[in-house]
Amino acid sequence: MFQSFEVSARPEQGPPRLKALRTEMAGEGLDGFLVPRADAHQGEYVAPHDERLAWLTGFTGSAGFCAALRDVAGVFIDGRYRTQVKAQVASDFTPVPWPEVSLGQWLKEQLPEGGTVGFDPWLHVPGQIEELEKTLDGSGVSLRASDNLVDRIWADQPAPPRAPAKAHPIEFAGESHADKRARLGQALRDKGEVAAVITLPDSLCWLLNIRGSDIPRNPIAQGFAVLHGSAVVDLFMDPAKLEGLEEHLGDKVSIRPPDTLLAYLQAQPGPVRLEKSSVPVIVAEAVGDKVVWGDDPCALPKACKNAAEIEGAAQAHLRDGAAVVELLAWLDAQAPGTVTETQVVSRLEAQRRTDNALQDISFETIAGTGPNGAIMHYRVTENTDSVLESGHLIVIDSGGQYLDGTTDITRTVPIGPPPQEACEAFTRVLLGMIAMSRLRWPRGLAGRDIEAVGRLPLWLAGQDFDHGLGHGVGAYLSVHEGPQRLSKTSHVPFQPGMILSNEPGYYREGAFGIRLENLLVVQDAPDLPGGDHHRKMLDWRTLTFAPIDRRLVVVDMLDRPSRDWLNTYHGQVAEKIGPRLSPEAKTWLDAATAPI
Amino acid sequence: MFQSFEVSARPEQGPPRLKALRTEMAGEGLDGFLVPRADAHQGEYVAPHDERLAWLTGFTGSAGFCAALRDVAGVFIDGRYRTQVKAQVASDFTPVPWPEVSLGQWLKEQLPEGGTVGFDPWLHVPGQIEELEKTLDGSGVSLRASDNLVDRIWADQPAPPRAPAKAHPIEFAGESHADKRARLGQALRDKGEVAAVITLPDSLCWLLNIRGSDIPRNPIAQGFAVLHGSAVVDLFMDPAKLEGLEEHLGDKVSIRPPDTLLAYLQAQPGPVRLEKSSVPVIVAEAVGDKVVWGDDPCALPKACKNAAEIEGAAQAHLRDGAAVVELLAWLDAQAPGTVTETQVVSRLEAQRRTDNALQDISFETIAGTGPNGAIMHYRVTENTDSVLESGHLIVIDSGGQYLDGTTDITRTVPIGPPPQEACEAFTRVLLGMIAMSRLRWPRGLAGRDIEAVGRLPLWLAGQDFDHGLGHGVGAYLSVHEGPQRLSKTSHVPFQPGMILSNEPGYYREGAFGIRLENLLVVQDAPDLPGGDHHRKMLDWRTLTFAPIDRRLVVVDMLDRPSRDWLNTYHGQVAEKIGPRLSPEAKTWLDAATAPI
Repeated sequence: MFQSFEVSARPEQGPPRLKALRTEMAGEGLDGFLVPRADAHQGEYVAPHDERLAWLTGFTGSAGFCAALRDVAGVFIDGRYRTQVKAQVASDFTPVPWPEVSLGQWLKEQLPEGGTVGFDPWLHVPGQIEELEKTLDGSGVSLRASDNLVDRIWADQPAPPRAPAKAHPIEFAGESHADKRARLGQALRDKGEVAAVITLPDSLCWLLNIRGSDIPRNPIAQGFAVLHGSAVVDLFMDPAKLEGLEEHLGDKVSIRPPDTLLAYLQAQPGPVRLEKSSVPVIVAEAVGDKVVWGDDPCALPKACKNAAEIEGAAQAHLRDGAAVVELLAWLDAQAPGTVTETQVVSRLEAQRRTDNALQDISFETIAGTGPNGAIMHYRVTENTDSVLESGHLIVIDSGGQYLDGTTDITRTVPIGPPPQEACEAFTRVLLGMIAMSRLRWPRGLAGRDIEAVGRLPLWLAGQDFDHGLGHGVGAYLSVHEGPQRLSKTSHVPFQPGMILSNEPGYYREGAFGIRLENLLVVQDAPDLPGGDHHRKMLDWRTLTFAPIDRRLVVVDMLDRPSRDWLNTYHGQVAEKIGPRLSPEAKTWLDAATAPI
Repeated sequence: MFQSFEVSARPEQGPPRLKALRTEMAGEGLDGFLVPRADAHQGEYVAPHDERLAWLTGFTGSAGFCAALRDVAGVFIDGRYRTQVKAQVASDFTPVPWPEVSLGQWLKEQLPEGGTVGFDPWLHVPGQIEELEKTLDGSGVSLRASDNLVDRIWADQPAPPRAPAKAHPIEFAGESHADKRARLGQALRDKGEVAAVITLPDSLCWLLNIRGSDIPRNPIAQGFAVLHGSAVVDLFMDPAKLEGLEEHLGDKVSIRPPDTLLAYLQAQPGPVRLEKSSVPVIVAEAVGDKVVWGDDPCALPKACKNAAEIEGAAQAHLRDGAAVVELLAWLDAQAPGTVTETQVVSRLEAQRRTDNALQDISFETIAGTGPNGAIMHYRVTENTDSVLESGHLIVIDSGGQYLDGTTDITRTVPIGPPPQEACEAFTRVLLGMIAMSRLRWPRGLAGRDIEAVGRLPLWLAGQDFDHGLGHGVGAYLSVHEGPQRLSKTSHVPFQPGMILSNEPGYYREGAFGIRLENLLVVQDAPDLPGGDHHRKMLDWRTLTFAPIDRRLVVVDMLDRPSRDWLNTYHGQVAEKIGPRLSPEAKTWLDAATAPI
């Protein structure tokens, strides 16, 4: 499914739906009802069946929620969506800046003592509800789990996804699901736990070496699983999705109807491990006092890619890099003022699809030219589509899903002659990206301990950017994967095999945006002569190969090691990507990767 | 009192004392007794009265504890003291590597079910005891608060310190204690707390603008204080120490006998704030269920120095820098093989005392030549005193206590021609120190977020060092002061006025050590042209001025901005320190600070 530029928000549909919801609330004796963007699996993308927030309010951002009360309906949105929400929702809805205003505080102000707010216990996690109850404590306002009232009034609600799942071949997975189950089951037994409930679809798919297509951009099959210490798995998933997978799953994986999950958990012995920030409230209640809070047992093993996954990622990146270079070469041949953002997006996706290996793009491509480039999560629509004009920079952030790996790459290129201050900022962004790529660091450090390295050149100039330096990336799974991050919020130590993005940027509101992004894999660093041999250190292997635009580099600002890195990198790009290109693109690449 | 090089450890005294302690234990029905190094104020230095650990075991390190059981006595020491402990304690004591082996685990292994371990509730904090009880849970081993059994058998135990306290003049303190009490009292009221108990002497001294000399190197007066929301303070301190301070303290500060503290707290209304990692267990028990755990209310205000304190620190550093330069100039005039470490220490202290402003040195000077330089916390004694030989590097880490400020400076200098690999490592250490000194960073970050900047040049060469990059420093108070640190353990955001050390190092065991240390103050960074004007950023003002040895710098390894920084810094050293020197030292300094 090619990326669409349709404007899906239809503000005028909101008010009658809100009215219908309020009628249901009254019938249930509720003074409010919470409508989150999340589904029961707390993922970044949701299926059409779960687009309740967009259906009710018109707001289509990837995070937020609505608190519909009798007289007011707050739409809580973070800093990214302050402008977008105004265009998408009718005046019956009140945008609320979040997290500056907490839901609990807002409810206390809006509701009288004795007010009751309903919520769907499949769509909220215990951490959220506990925090909310703590804030409401003493206010007389209370929460009550209820049926989903939006589902009751949504007459043409799409059915839950039932796309067939496929086995993920061992040549890409690198470890059989029997081995994974045995390894993780042992870890549960070591902690004295009899089982763990897995509610995140990417964890479930990784564990059982399956992939699906229940939601866009993310090759997962939705469901729940119970992993036992014995290495047996109970898989709660629509059997229709699993047809033909009986042999792959084998006799240690029992397929069970999803609607039997809660009763099954109630009957299980304990202790049972749950992950507090992702398990639905209703699942936690079914486990009851047998619960032990802990990490999703798949999270860390999934993050540490094995040799097959790393090699797969490397191959996927060569294929993907060739598609990106074809696009860059084509773009460079177009005169300023003749191409629009949507044309860039569509052409890039078409280029990725030419060799038939692409399963899907890994997220909606960001292509922002001129001032649109300064909008960090810009997604072009029919309404915003802009012409690439001379003097613009365009930020192109995109990726692909391949059977052997997931890619995510950002390049920024000039349209016509670039402004000097943009070149200077670009060079600082590049210096940060290179400093992180060249880094070596002692084992035991986390994202918070090293992120500064990628920001330093900007800081020294009084500049910075308001997103993390990087996120984890899955192996033909989610393009945003935890628990590792290159961010000051991340305290999880890096381990070999973790894939992360390295994506510093700079955004001048109303003028231009800059972002550069390569994917990197953590690896054991080689011993250096004269180094401390007793010290275990880590470094990066770069996965992404595509040129960095030399026209935006202020050469005098590069120190010698950074310049050497750039020239070496460009040599590798030419060597690895060159043979995969059309003759025109090959010629372009040779010039684009010449040493500076 | 000049630094002593006496070897105070007398291993042979330990066994009879241990035997006497075991007799007391038996009389109390105890199977063990804990003897920590700490006193009731959890400081880094303790008075002779509180040197129980050294008296019992012979071990004189600045951290550690003994767990004396009926048949075994473990001396728990961290990595710094593994060698020292062996030389200091008799074979009746068993060194235990800590924190690798936890006390709880060790007690569980050593003691039978039903075993009871005594502890002095003045010398332990609730966090320690709770963690210990958690580890012992289910083992049948229990803890019991008791009299201090060491005090019972220590016939010639020195009396608790009773040194007179003095008022700290407003010209140095910059804020009256009335204003401090009002400000902090208001903060308590804002949180709904009626009072806070202050158990850290440096907090108490800062709050009341007094200084003392109860313990070496640290100008504090020991005592406890209760700060009320009303801004009134009850001060539990030996009245003999406070003679003549009645007017300074005024009528809002009531002096009370120390032995009435517990009864007073029992009778107080709540909530009362205590700091969990520093309050004695027995004080927490006296407060009982009125306790609210929180920060020491003085900790953060004390860390953020006001203009008078910063200006005082700057002046103290000029005076101190001149003493250091005189020492360096003298040292450089001595032939290799003619001077020992103790001579360097004594001469430096004498130099600091020449202008009569020095109150005390701020810690025992570290002067380690050759292999001794690789021992991070080396303190020279008669037994280890070594000659400064050609080919050595000597690390000199020292500081002074002045009425207007506390200093802490480290320089590393070569004796004769230095080895090339030492020069390369020195240059990396210097590059890290410069990178931190030049840093600018967004408000909101803590030590953990930026420490990497000072380690990066070493990391890239496969090298690192095993201590934090820096610690907070007091204003004529403790040379190690929290809560801010330049360390991966520190999550406290930097604020203007905080003073920190910037002291990267490198240690090649058995060969050489390197450390460079300047003190820095956090300040609001000036706006830069082209920078993000909406971003509040911080940077450093350097306080320490003394030359960095140019003979150890590999000039080719310096990038342009680092070289410029070094030359600019040396120009400031010559300008600020030069006029304060003897003619010989001035001549030496001019050469030592010439541009490279």
